[in-house]
This record gives sequence, structure tokens and C-alpha cells, in this order.
Amino acid sequence: MTTHHPFDQALVLDSTAPGHYRGQTHPAYWNMVGPFGGITAATVLRSILLHPDLLGEPLSLTVNYAGALSTGPFTVQATPVRTNRSTQHWSVTILQTDAQGGEVVTTTATAVTAARRETWSMADTPMPAVPRPDTLESVGSVSGVEWFNRYDIRPVTGAIPRQWNGQGDSSLTQLWMRDTPQRPLDFCSLAALADVFFPRVWLRRALPVPAGTVSITVYFHAGSGQLQETGAGFLLGQARAQEFRNGFFDQAVQLWNEAGSLLATSHQIVYYKE
Amino acid sequence: MTTHHPFDQALVLDSTAPGHYRGQTHPAYWNMVGPFGGITAATVLRSILLHPDLLGEPLSLTVNYAGALSTGPFTVQATPVRTNRSTQHWSVTILQTDAQGGEVVTTTATAVTAARRETWSMADTPMPAVPRPDTLESVGSVSGVEWFNRYDIRPVTGAIPRQWNGQGDSSLTQLWMRDTPQRPLDFCSLAALADVFFPRVWLRRALPVPAGTVSITVYFHAGSGQLQETGAGFLLGQARAQEFRNGFFDQAVQLWNEAGSLLATSHQIVYYKE
Repeated sequence: MTTHHPFDQALVLDSTAPGHYRGQTHPAYWNMVGPFGGITAATVLRSILLHPDLLGEPLSLTVNYAGALSTGPFTVQATPVRTNRSTQHWSVTILQTDAQGGEVVTTTATAVTAARRETWSMADTPMPAVPRPDTLESVGSVSGVEWFNRYDIRPVTGAIPRQWNGQGDSSLTQLWMRDTPQRPLDFCSLAALADVFFPRVWLRRALPVPAGTVSITVYFHAGSGQLQETGAGFLLGQARAQEFRNGFFDQAVQLWNEAGSLLATSHQIVYYKE
Repeated sequence: MTTHHPFDQALVLDSTAPGHYRGQTHPAYWNMVGPFGGITAATVLRSILLHPDLLGEPLSLTVNYAGALSTGPFTVQATPVRTNRSTQHWSVTILQTDAQGGEVVTTTATAVTAARRETWSMADTPMPAVPRPDTLESVGSVSGVEWFNRYDIRPVTGAIPRQWNGQGDSSLTQLWMRDTPQRPLDFCSLAALADVFFPRVWLRRALPVPAGTVSITVYFHAGSGQLQETGAGFLLGQARAQEFRNGFFDQAVQLWNEAGSLLATSHQIVYYKE
């Protein structure tokens, strides 16, 4: 399964017992003071997908960032808390040894996997009409944000402000995105892509205040078949805040593939300062 | 704290040790095959709010319905997994003794509480312009759904279809709601209100297929001061699905008070059949 793609390298987990793994933070997905939140969410999901007792495919995933991971090794514990006929409930924890030699929890998570059946289905949120990705420019690097170089991101609207002048007027971003180098989409990379968006407060205020995700939830609408059909193509991501209030804002996200299928929806609550 | 209001009676938890509680399912909030999901979410939150080590107020709550509770006693375990300077991360489990005498997990949950500070704030989702609640009619009882009698619900649009004719054309519901008898809003009742909406698939299809919430997340934008200002007034709730796909759909919810403040946003992923 493991390839030379940096995403796969970052997700390498060595099983020490069923549901117990050792991993390493990866410099390719480093953010300013810890790993990119999306790679942590992907790591949580991978620990579930590697579990010998796994039932079905990912349906929902909630990851809570309790504390930033430091550079180096970490452990992951994934437990199938309850297995029903067609759904399975997971609890996942990431731990790291601190300077005093104690184990501290850096991440808590829950997830549900499900054996899906074909039913009546309906898309109820059409993809917005936007220019195709090959007509748009990729954004460049961002100084000090290494993980940003792992994605080809092409904004349609709501790019990072060029001027921090406090004159923002919308929290809406629409952008095309995919892994770079290209990589076929899977559940883990889809979870990571749900966290690609820069903080809504930067856009709404046109001010780069300190901000960080506290908790993210991803609902997977696509099964593995639809992910395979998507392949290594672009996804259209849309992100918007609903409320900024006393140090926290929310972000609601939709992710469509180029064919217009809604693959995942996601939400997060984000800390901000000032 | 405990009053004679059925909501408070349903949330009575007797502490047996720090973070360990005994509770009882309450007939006033019974759904067809288990408790109303909202009362379970409120019970999870109450176990956190009762904990002697609590820091701050609720910020986010994710509750996973692993299995229906049976009538009778249950236990709740609430653990502050990590406490930072201004945020605290919680893990909560509800367990019940099964017919074989074993303890089974019925509910898993995570939550974040936070000590909030006053910051720049902005409402980014205005309340829709709708008729005031005193101009609208309350919906009546629904046979076999006892918890529905605990709420005064006044639909603006998207009420339960009168004809199950398969001719639905929207998943949008807007309704005013409050506890009945009236009760001042608090974090637990707000969490419960986030789950009041009937399954979106019933509305979108105009077909009453079996459906049940798998996982719900609530983000609390209001602090206790704003809840006190809201008092026992109505909330405007808005619910909409984004995708129905192979046995599961999502629901995105906003809850405003009568003054137009967005108190909470919520999301859930819901199982449906056929």
C-alpha cells in the first residue's frame, strides 16, 4: 500500500498490537507550530482503516485537536467500541511522550464506519458554476507553511487577501485542489482536503490574526467506488463561516469532484485571537 | 438545580464518583424505539457540566448513537482527557447493562469546553425573514412519539408532509420552537433543540422511510449570558440536507433566538432505509 508519495509516507503506521500503532510526524506536512490538521485527521482515519476488525467504509469522522504534536514519534490507539450489523463505532486517541516522560493526549477522535447499500439517492446541493481548474492559476508557496506545497490549489473566489487592510466583506472561498504530486483520491486524502482552507477570520476581516482548528467533523457521502472514479482529478472545495463570536468561529465545507458529485461535507470550529 | 420540569427530571444524574453517574431513561422523552436523540445529547453535556473539574462553557459536542438505550437505568462516564489554559477536551460514554448482564456502550461522545473572552465578533448568517411565532399554529401530537409533546413547534415552511405521495421537492424546514412547559434556555436544552427536526428524507421524498441519527455535532456560538437573554423565548430553527447517498444523508442546522442571534449551528449524519 505504501508508496513514495509524501502523503503515504506521512501516514505510515507500524502496528504494535491490534489497534495500536507507532507513527512519526512528517516534515512535508508541517504547519507553523505542529502538523497540518488535515494530516492528523488522515492519520486517525488510517488507524481505523488498518484495523483487522474494520467493518465497512468511513461515514463520519470527528477529530479534536487537544494539543499540537511535537516533531517526532507518536502512538495511535484505535478501538472499535461497538460493532452493529452494518455500522461500527470507533474511538481513537493520539498520544505523545512529553519532556517529563509522561504520555499526553494530543488528539481525541470518534468515527463511524458503515457497510453501505445501494438505495434511493439524491444530490441536494449542486456544485456552483465556476471556471474549470485548467483556466485558473495555482497559488504559490506560503512562507513557513510547508504542507501548503503538497497541494495544487487554484482559487475561484476568496483567496488569501493580498492586502491585510481590515476591509474584508465575505467569508466565502471556492477553490479547486488536488494533491501534488498527483495521487488517486482515497478516504484519508479526502479527509485531509477537508481541512485545506485557511482561517475564515483572515478572509472576513482581511486581518491575519492567530487562529487554529479546535475540532473538525467530516461526513463521507462517497463510497470507494466514487473515489476511484474521481481518481487524481481536482476537487472543488467551498468554505464559509456562519458566526464569529468571542474567540471562535465555525466553517462549513463542501467538496465536489470535477463531475459534480458531492463527495464529502465537513465542519469545524476554530479558535481565533483578538 | 433540579426542577419539576420534565426536561430537568430526564437529566437527573446521580454522581457515584467524579465523572461517573447513574441516570434513568425518562418516558416523557421517549421516541419510538429509544430515547429522543436530543435528550441523549443533553445527558452527555450535563455529565460534563456536573463534573467538578469543568473549565469554561460548551463550545463543541459530538454524540454518536452506537445503539438505542433500553428503558431503565444507565451509567455515564465523563473524562476531562486534556485541560489547556482556556480549552478542555472531554470524552463521554453512556453504558447500559444488557440482558446477559454485560455492559454495552450505547453512546460515545467528545466535547470541548472553553473559557471565552470578548473579541471582535460578527454574525455572518442573518436570520431568514419569517413570520413571528405568535402568528403561526403549533403542530399537534404525533402518535407514538411522546417527546414531541415536550416541544411547542410552529413550522414556517417544510412541515411534516400531509400526504406521503413521493412528491417532495425540498429538504428545507424552518420552524419556531421552545420547550413546553416553557423553560429558560440553557446549554443542555439548546443541544436537545438541535435534534428536533424530523428526518430530511421524509420531507425530500414525501415518504416516511425508517431513519435514525448516527452522529450529531453541535457548535455553541452563544455564551451563558446570551442564553440568559434568550430566556424562555422561541428559537428559529432551520434544517436542510446536502446529500442523500446510499443509506445516509446529512442535515445542517442553524438555531437563532427571536432577537436574531445565531446561538448554535449543528450537523448530523442520518441512516435511512430503501
